[in-house]
Amino acid sequence: MDNALKLDTVRLSEDRKSLVILDQTLLPRNIKYLSLVKREEIWEAIYKLRVRGAPAIGCAAAYGLYILASGYAGDDVDGFVEYVKGEKDYLNSSRPTAVNLSWALNRLWTCLVANKDKLSVKELKDLLGKDADSIYQEDVAISRSIGSYGFELLHHGDGILTHCNAGTLATAKYGTALAPIYIALEHGWNDLKVYCDETRPLLQGARLSAFEMQSAGVYTTLLCDNMASITMKRGKINIVFVGADRVAANGDFANKIGTSGVAILAKHYGIPFYCCAPTTTIDMATATGDDIPIEERKPEEVTEMWYKERMAPDGVHVDNPAFDVTDHTLVTGIITEKGIAYPPFDKAFKRMGIK
Amino acid sequence: MDNALKLDTVRLSEDRKSLVILDQTLLPRNIKYLSLVKREEIWEAIYKLRVRGAPAIGCAAAYGLYILASGYAGDDVDGFVEYVKGEKDYLNSSRPTAVNLSWALNRLWTCLVANKDKLSVKELKDLLGKDADSIYQEDVAISRSIGSYGFELLHHGDGILTHCNAGTLATAKYGTALAPIYIALEHGWNDLKVYCDETRPLLQGARLSAFEMQSAGVYTTLLCDNMASITMKRGKINIVFVGADRVAANGDFANKIGTSGVAILAKHYGIPFYCCAPTTTIDMATATGDDIPIEERKPEEVTEMWYKERMAPDGVHVDNPAFDVTDHTLVTGIITEKGIAYPPFDKAFKRMGIK
Repeated sequence: MDNALKLDTVRLSEDRKSLVILDQTLLPRNIKYLSLVKREEIWEAIYKLRVRGAPAIGCAAAYGLYILASGYAGDDVDGFVEYVKGEKDYLNSSRPTAVNLSWALNRLWTCLVANKDKLSVKELKDLLGKDADSIYQEDVAISRSIGSYGFELLHHGDGILTHCNAGTLATAKYGTALAPIYIALEHGWNDLKVYCDETRPLLQGARLSAFEMQSAGVYTTLLCDNMASITMKRGKINIVFVGADRVAANGDFANKIGTSGVAILAKHYGIPFYCCAPTTTIDMATATGDDIPIEERKPEEVTEMWYKERMAPDGVHVDNPAFDVTDHTLVTGIITEKGIAYPPFDKAFKRMGIK
Repeated sequence: MDNALKLDTVRLSEDRKSLVILDQTLLPRNIKYLSLVKREEIWEAIYKLRVRGAPAIGCAAAYGLYILASGYAGDDVDGFVEYVKGEKDYLNSSRPTAVNLSWALNRLWTCLVANKDKLSVKELKDLLGKDADSIYQEDVAISRSIGSYGFELLHHGDGILTHCNAGTLATAKYGTALAPIYIALEHGWNDLKVYCDETRPLLQGARLSAFEMQSAGVYTTLLCDNMASITMKRGKINIVFVGADRVAANGDFANKIGTSGVAILAKHYGIPFYCCAPTTTIDMATATGDDIPIEERKPEEVTEMWYKERMAPDGVHVDNPAFDVTDHTLVTGIITEKGIAYPPFDKAFKRMGIK
């Protein structure tokens, strides 16, 4: 199995005419890249979690908007700007919780508006492409930096619990929650043990995190979500690293459903619990977790295994929130590319210059 | 859909020559009864969870041992006693955690030993059959009583969270954790809402509890295990009822994997958490939860969906403990057929006359 770091989660094609993503719904069994050009294809790839993870969604949205903008036929700047706005709003409707989606789209949009009076349509298209490239390259650097800060918290032989997937597959490269482990590997550490919650209903922990970590040569153990408690009680977990889809100004954060439960367990057992997120995921316009919209997804994700076999009685009600909010009082620290924020988080964010 | 209360979880055939169980691995899609005669069939039915739930396992073991004893060909009492001992030990090896298995087998064994010097082999066989019948009938009465005590804790409109299945399918009838809801239905209450954790890896919550509750006409919502935290936070849960496979003398108890996590969440959110168990599940010979053996099951239960589709990378390590222990400090009360025990549990158990 190839080291997952060698896989491109999201990129432009060589000719820069399509968005290429690794279809993560097929992992770990099939490594298949999709080449996307149409607006509906790009929207569907984000909605269906073919590309997922807040930073990777940001990269996909940026490249996606560039691809769609490139397809504009005319040379009328006002018409182009209007068209790009429509495409931006359309892509932004694909998923509600991760702030990186709107952040990346708005960054390109702001860049476009700032330059629309001085450049031609062709030049504006090139500019959007360059800005999307920058988002991608910055994401690689941000992830490495998060990894370096997180690595400082690790000790030889540590057991690390993670939930969902915030690894290289969730970013341009390295990941957020798994980045410290990739950095540890670069330092020659080969004695860390990673425990991956399988993360129902879509099993990103089983399919993605376990795949990443095992392919990188880390001793990897898969758990059902409800086994985290006994695993902590047995003393196997020294630290918890998770990602985030949006961090509020007070340090509350939304992440894959189940994260808040892991945080409560960690607090109960006295285990440090860290959220790993780029500062782009910190949304100072969102005061607390109560203000973060939580995506509700289809019941069939819970009741049918990959749409092949129904596991629950017909007609049963199903709650299927895709995320939950972890209260900042449960969080030991938030690891960003600018350093580790400790409580009180609002003050720490301000000291970091986050606006 | 028939009300699940009409289904026989476990019984003797009309001619009392075979053990009849509802194959719970096929629920909710197929309602199929198995007629078991051979020792390996009975052992396999318990090991594979075709019949499961501590009280139902006790009934199945008692009837199973009676069926096997009935098959003894000779009329030599000493040979018969020796043979029954072998069958008892064999059945007892099918699963380690639920104390009802050994409790029921030992009850028949004690009855046999006490009467072996006065009765013939045929008479001893009949006596074992009567004792197995008693275990079954007592279990129905015990479950009704647990249900009545639990019902006193409910209020109209309550949301009740349960984990795994401790319903009629886990007992001779009515269940333990779900018994209060059946009693509420008998009182004409139709405004309770039940939330069922799906309970990975074998999905007893999705397949069995959701099926039971929905078939009984209760408003039933299915959750992935990792959604319990957000559901509690949203204020939907007023009380938690779970079953138990073994309760230690100090009130620690083993139940399906994930129960301890639910208890920690309930404590965090200030929600009362009750364990529902017959006094036969309380094992005063087990001092604390640390002394309860925890069954480890096959990795494939986690990595392969019903052995059809693998969901995790090849070679990944898997922890698959079937149970965990909930610390007595997390338990509001333990509902038995003799009343509700409150902390300190050791003293409460003694007051109840449990030895």
